[in-house]
Amino acid sequence: MKLVRFGRPGKEKPGLIDQAGKLRDLSEVVADIDADTLSPRALARLAKLKPESLPTARGAPRIGPCVVGVRNFVAVGLNYADHAAETGAAAPKEPVLFNKAPSCIVGPNDDVIAPRGSTKLDWEVELAIVIGTRASYVGEADAMKHVAGFCICNDVSERAFQIERGGQWMKGKGCPTFGPLGPWLVTPDEIDDVQNLRMWLDVNGERMQDGSTASMIFGVTTLVSYISQFMILEPGDVVTTGTPAGVGLGKKPPVFLKPGDTISLGIDGLGRQAQRVVAEGGE
Amino acid sequence: MKLVRFGRPGKEKPGLIDQAGKLRDLSEVVADIDADTLSPRALARLAKLKPESLPTARGAPRIGPCVVGVRNFVAVGLNYADHAAETGAAAPKEPVLFNKAPSCIVGPNDDVIAPRGSTKLDWEVELAIVIGTRASYVGEADAMKHVAGFCICNDVSERAFQIERGGQWMKGKGCPTFGPLGPWLVTPDEIDDVQNLRMWLDVNGERMQDGSTASMIFGVTTLVSYISQFMILEPGDVVTTGTPAGVGLGKKPPVFLKPGDTISLGIDGLGRQAQRVVAEGGE
Repeated sequence: MKLVRFGRPGKEKPGLIDQAGKLRDLSEVVADIDADTLSPRALARLAKLKPESLPTARGAPRIGPCVVGVRNFVAVGLNYADHAAETGAAAPKEPVLFNKAPSCIVGPNDDVIAPRGSTKLDWEVELAIVIGTRASYVGEADAMKHVAGFCICNDVSERAFQIERGGQWMKGKGCPTFGPLGPWLVTPDEIDDVQNLRMWLDVNGERMQDGSTASMIFGVTTLVSYISQFMILEPGDVVTTGTPAGVGLGKKPPVFLKPGDTISLGIDGLGRQAQRVVAEGGE
Repeated sequence: MKLVRFGRPGKEKPGLIDQAGKLRDLSEVVADIDADTLSPRALARLAKLKPESLPTARGAPRIGPCVVGVRNFVAVGLNYADHAAETGAAAPKEPVLFNKAPSCIVGPNDDVIAPRGSTKLDWEVELAIVIGTRASYVGEADAMKHVAGFCICNDVSERAFQIERGGQWMKGKGCPTFGPLGPWLVTPDEIDDVQNLRMWLDVNGERMQDGSTASMIFGVTTLVSYISQFMILEPGDVVTTGTPAGVGLGKKPPVFLKPGDTISLGIDGLGRQAQRVVAEGGE
């Protein structure tokens, strides 16, 4: 299934994309795409629906973030060797983790706001994991049982805030609009091999990132298992899994985003996002 | 007001402590002590109640974490000069921020679980801020308008996970039970000067930390304002503000917690906590 949320910010309805690519309204079936709806039992119930029996959504509504009520938004750093190299870091021996503030989550095509004082605004196309059931001390063999699905995340980053403002990365990772998620939350049955998905990102139409989840240092099952040794992952939590080479910080010389720029990005089978960069407080 | 949550884990009811120190049941008045109840309007409504008109809670129930539904649990590092010195770090020029996983939050007297593989389990008595209204780009003069109240936090830490496992601190800060909050969420009107509260922590009856919020490098209003420049703080979010000297890592030689140890801690006007350390998976 491809689950979506559509409508005005904060007023989104749940939906799904049918075989023909039509947006169907799920709001008579579930309250939202949240922790409750992402349990294996609830997903199994949804999978039995005949999409053609659901009403189609009218018009071309805004698409919201594909999951709501995220509490823990975990991110993995330097998880592609080519990206670690371009930032001057060694490939990590074990996963590097940090957090993004859950308040940064927005829809896949919402504006990205350059925060006040921003000078080094950057992009990162990433595969994100959405957790379906509580995961604590999970082994790799069981990890996929805890995954409700996958989506695209643009792990928007302010490099000066991240690196030059006092030690921990999260300062430059959770600014408002720094977490576009979606368009779809795609359940694992729809994906042949999650470790072999092409991913790309363009800025102003120019290809900046062109990679594959095949190049991850630590794959999905390793990450879920690893993170669950350090914290409980709860239903609706999101883990974004790192980015391949081609971020602005890694260019020679570095290139950063400015108001007016456009970003588009996609991952095989997970759809695509498109954002416009705007100044904070302006238009 | 002193707001509390009482009852079995996950089934807590809201309550308040009256002038005589009695626990009164608020469950006929509000659903829980959460984002909705912490708005200025909702708190003003609660403040008009006559506590003696509320039923008293029966028996001596367990006390739960004093707020529920926390999404962003932000922590401030090295915010007391004596603590920075004992860990060998310079006093920071601006606040150092990291995250604790919200799934680590427990009641003030619940067991602290030593995670699997733990070798350097440590304590930190801290003043925590609970956010009442959305804060984004807030100035220091307005910061207190966004604060619903204060509580004690034991910022339990696994130093090996925090420092020796790959760069970012959050790996050693959000393990299950690493965030005892409470017993009370105390509204600001009950506190004469939040920057002049004595704070202490004992391990097995021996005084380990003995400090005061007067020694913070960055005070409450500075922190709320500062953090709001980097991320939106939402109602129900918690900011724990750092610890004074006397943690296990700072002892010569270092001293760490082991199963069977007891921790007690308190802050003037905010009550006290008491935890027992237990092994993961054991009793």
